[in-house]
Amino acid sequence: MLLSKLVCERTKEAPQDAKIKSHVLLSRAGFIKQVAVGIYSMTMPCQKMSVKIQKIIREEMDALDGQEVLFPVVMPREIWELSDRYNTIGNEMVRFKDRNNRDMLLGMTHEEAAVHLANHIVSSYAQLPFMIYQIQTKFRDEARSRGGLIRVREFTMKDAYSFHESKEDLEKYYYRVFDAYYRIFKRIGLKRFIDIKSDSGMMGGSVAHEFMLLTEVGEDSIVLCNDCDYRANMEVAECKLETPKADAQPLTLVDTGEDKTIDEVCSRLKVAKEYSCKAVVFAVKGNSEEVVIAFIRGDLEVNEAKLKKVLGKDIVPYDGGVSEVIACGNIGPYGLDKSIITVYDKSLENINSLVIGANKPNYHYTGFNFKRDMSGELKFDDIAKVKDGSVCPVCGKVLRVENGIEIGNIFQLGTKYTKSMDMTVHGADGGEFNPIMGCYGIGVGRAIASVAQESSDDKGLILPMSIAPWQVHICPLRLDDKNVEEKAYGLYETLTKRGVEVLFDDRSVGAGVKFNDADLMGMPIRVVVSPKSLATGEAEISVRATGECKKVAYENVCGEIESIIKAQLDALNA
Amino acid sequence: MLLSKLVCERTKEAPQDAKIKSHVLLSRAGFIKQVAVGIYSMTMPCQKMSVKIQKIIREEMDALDGQEVLFPVVMPREIWELSDRYNTIGNEMVRFKDRNNRDMLLGMTHEEAAVHLANHIVSSYAQLPFMIYQIQTKFRDEARSRGGLIRVREFTMKDAYSFHESKEDLEKYYYRVFDAYYRIFKRIGLKRFIDIKSDSGMMGGSVAHEFMLLTEVGEDSIVLCNDCDYRANMEVAECKLETPKADAQPLTLVDTGEDKTIDEVCSRLKVAKEYSCKAVVFAVKGNSEEVVIAFIRGDLEVNEAKLKKVLGKDIVPYDGGVSEVIACGNIGPYGLDKSIITVYDKSLENINSLVIGANKPNYHYTGFNFKRDMSGELKFDDIAKVKDGSVCPVCGKVLRVENGIEIGNIFQLGTKYTKSMDMTVHGADGGEFNPIMGCYGIGVGRAIASVAQESSDDKGLILPMSIAPWQVHICPLRLDDKNVEEKAYGLYETLTKRGVEVLFDDRSVGAGVKFNDADLMGMPIRVVVSPKSLATGEAEISVRATGECKKVAYENVCGEIESIIKAQLDALNA
Repeated sequence: MLLSKLVCERTKEAPQDAKIKSHVLLSRAGFIKQVAVGIYSMTMPCQKMSVKIQKIIREEMDALDGQEVLFPVVMPREIWELSDRYNTIGNEMVRFKDRNNRDMLLGMTHEEAAVHLANHIVSSYAQLPFMIYQIQTKFRDEARSRGGLIRVREFTMKDAYSFHESKEDLEKYYYRVFDAYYRIFKRIGLKRFIDIKSDSGMMGGSVAHEFMLLTEVGEDSIVLCNDCDYRANMEVAECKLETPKADAQPLTLVDTGEDKTIDEVCSRLKVAKEYSCKAVVFAVKGNSEEVVIAFIRGDLEVNEAKLKKVLGKDIVPYDGGVSEVIACGNIGPYGLDKSIITVYDKSLENINSLVIGANKPNYHYTGFNFKRDMSGELKFDDIAKVKDGSVCPVCGKVLRVENGIEIGNIFQLGTKYTKSMDMTVHGADGGEFNPIMGCYGIGVGRAIASVAQESSDDKGLILPMSIAPWQVHICPLRLDDKNVEEKAYGLYETLTKRGVEVLFDDRSVGAGVKFNDADLMGMPIRVVVSPKSLATGEAEISVRATGECKKVAYENVCGEIESIIKAQLDALNA
Repeated sequence: MLLSKLVCERTKEAPQDAKIKSHVLLSRAGFIKQVAVGIYSMTMPCQKMSVKIQKIIREEMDALDGQEVLFPVVMPREIWELSDRYNTIGNEMVRFKDRNNRDMLLGMTHEEAAVHLANHIVSSYAQLPFMIYQIQTKFRDEARSRGGLIRVREFTMKDAYSFHESKEDLEKYYYRVFDAYYRIFKRIGLKRFIDIKSDSGMMGGSVAHEFMLLTEVGEDSIVLCNDCDYRANMEVAECKLETPKADAQPLTLVDTGEDKTIDEVCSRLKVAKEYSCKAVVFAVKGNSEEVVIAFIRGDLEVNEAKLKKVLGKDIVPYDGGVSEVIACGNIGPYGLDKSIITVYDKSLENINSLVIGANKPNYHYTGFNFKRDMSGELKFDDIAKVKDGSVCPVCGKVLRVENGIEIGNIFQLGTKYTKSMDMTVHGADGGEFNPIMGCYGIGVGRAIASVAQESSDDKGLILPMSIAPWQVHICPLRLDDKNVEEKAYGLYETLTKRGVEVLFDDRSVGAGVKFNDADLMGMPIRVVVSPKSLATGEAEISVRATGECKKVAYENVCGEIESIIKAQLDALNA
């Protein structure tokens, strides 16, 4: 490909809204162009990467006996009503009426379509297990699209659906996909990625894993142990808590004046925060009158996801009003209005002596003891947020918190969809059953952005050999020199004939511009052919990933390039 | 692939609405499954065909220096307002509001997106010409989707857009694409296809060609000369008309009683229909009071498309009312109310003596002569429909009318989009100009349906080697026989290792069922391994396209298959 003809403009500046490296670099390299919020066109280099990633995904899916199919983007309301998702999914799903006034929608996932396709076609257990997958455009009307290709509204996705006779069979297959996902991410050149067990959320299943690229720009917080294998999404992460030792003390009302925050009160009373009980106030979403008070040890924070799970209700931050008790600020579990919903964190359960709010202005209690001072049955739940430095619940060593981008996910769906859509299959015993499903997704654009985020430096992209649009970027200097022209184009032709993909910078611009563009666009191998190098019959080969650079006799350039390509591909496929 | 695991059900019956062969066979073979009107899921065999067709298209587009890109399916109103198509395209374009109440649409074509992508990136004439293309899902809310994959609402399409400095350069490139289209259709196995010059309609350009598969189930009527190269869409087709000779006669009012139709009147007056003038009444669409009367020779029919073009207005059949003259039925050009819009066909221009309606009950005129009897300037237009047997306007030989399916189209767009979207490029002379565009489309699903329509017999599909999902279909008979099992699976494994794609019928069903399914699904080569064939150390190879069948020594089967594959592919790529 001649760079002068490539519809792809390199720029010094990134769009104003580009805050993260992958967005900046993919924009500056001219790989993407925004059409609307969260909607992009891809130029040739980006689309070539997409096609190469799709090929790797296809190979791995086919190796799992996956059958590539194609579901529609536009689906009728009817099949989504069977699973009840037509009504339960919010406005991230686009709905519209067609010309005959029928309700249609844009698919953001295809469980219903997968069951619709397989239903009635598969009628016997002997046809199980099978997996069908597609690579197709999806549209999800994200409220907060961001980060270029990281979180968009329209995206290309591989989604796969497997059907099984038993939970055991699903489990076996599920872990084969799990392994394939590791291979896919490795083959496309990602490095710091992990799997974590996750809630399956809207998919409605039980066991699920997310694959996460660890990167500071990630939206998800992940808790990892520095020593053992423990890792979890912040939303469900746990940690071990030592109960601070203290002798029981009598419950005593003390004047704390205007001091209200845990810091102020503990400082006045000369007590460590571990010996205090903090109250965090929320309201139930959609009903600001219904207040929820979460009590937790003074040095800890509430994990709202855990709290929601305990409550079984969605919550929002409390914004004032309702009652005097809450208004006064010194909220404590003792003597609190019984009509208020309360949740107690486990951290409080066994502390013998706590400082708590007295539910009236200017006063706190000291010496509070839940078991001694509260009547009735008390329930303590884990609603605490794990922090950097928390103690690993498995091995007791130190936990750290990292950010991550979700690059794939797999779910054991169970029979939610086969049951609701009435897909039954004859069993070996003559009876009928609903097949058990798994589903497996990877976003292609997200993968491109992830690679750009992880594989890049200040100068630009550093694309992995497996997915780079071109493996070689030839920069001839002084193309007006007959010898350079002949040798550079000769190399271009020979490499192309030998099946190497080459980007050729045929512009009459200076070396600086050519090198900057080459660094920005990030092809794995750069070849410089110049009057100077040719004077000694050589060309200069440099490897983008390592910065390694060497002069090679012109006649050996092709061979050298092919061996670099092979070595890099072997490393990715190892 | 093991047939027992393939999610694809063969059936005896086709869906009730399947009226044409391709729809019947693709349904019966289990290749497609309807999700909603005009919306289908594709099972693995169909999707494999789609991917193979896409690969062929990609190769041909890349050979034209095409740059594969990806435009979004969902686009914002804004860029479609620049071209004014947001307002001018009807409800075949899906429009919806996103969660932020912005107007969005589903792309049914991507001229706007192509200009949006290239605009500002391409700034100099030196970057021209270039072509960008995509293979992407499109949605067009067709009023009358029909025929399975022939006319659907959602489809996968290759659409390409080229940009040029001059009309000459566009023209040169345009005919390179033209040639590539011939290669593509040939390579995917289509046989009876032609190109015809066409109106470019909504695309707003000038020169355009449609590629048509000639088939009786086509929706388009095409006029072809049996002797020369003349061919045209019915809408614009012309033919040579001999003017019937007659001596001038005096204009005479004659009583024709209750006779009204041309047949009745001509029969009563003993005059051939060529000597009569027929009136065909229409109304302007949207205004049934505005009547249009088309006069044409009695033996000819009006071509409404031509008439619309002459009028510059859309018309609908007239449905009664308005005036007495029309109500009486004997409508003629002589003495007709001047306020009525009239169009005269060329066929009438030079006839010396015509029978015409007298615009009153029970009377016609004979001996009418337009030039002599009508005052004022008269304009004669070609509004006649060409018929089977009409005379070729080029060579004077016989024309025939065939039906066709549009399988591709190419347009010389001009500057409509670059102008309206304000895309300018610096010229060699320092000035600025709007690049001249061409656009080029092929529907992938339509191509599959076209192959199914043309390449099939009563038993089922006959898939071309280049796009068949599997090249070989192995039918082992009596898999419970150890020898058959070993040899059949051995062949399956060896062929697969050698890169041949094989469908293996591992079901324990009879030979009849296996053969019927193999015929229905239409893989190019069938191999039968049975106790009987193995008794002489042989397997039976048959070629679906020719019916040719021979026994081959087991050890030569792979070689024989490979040479059949090569021969068939060579023929398609020749």
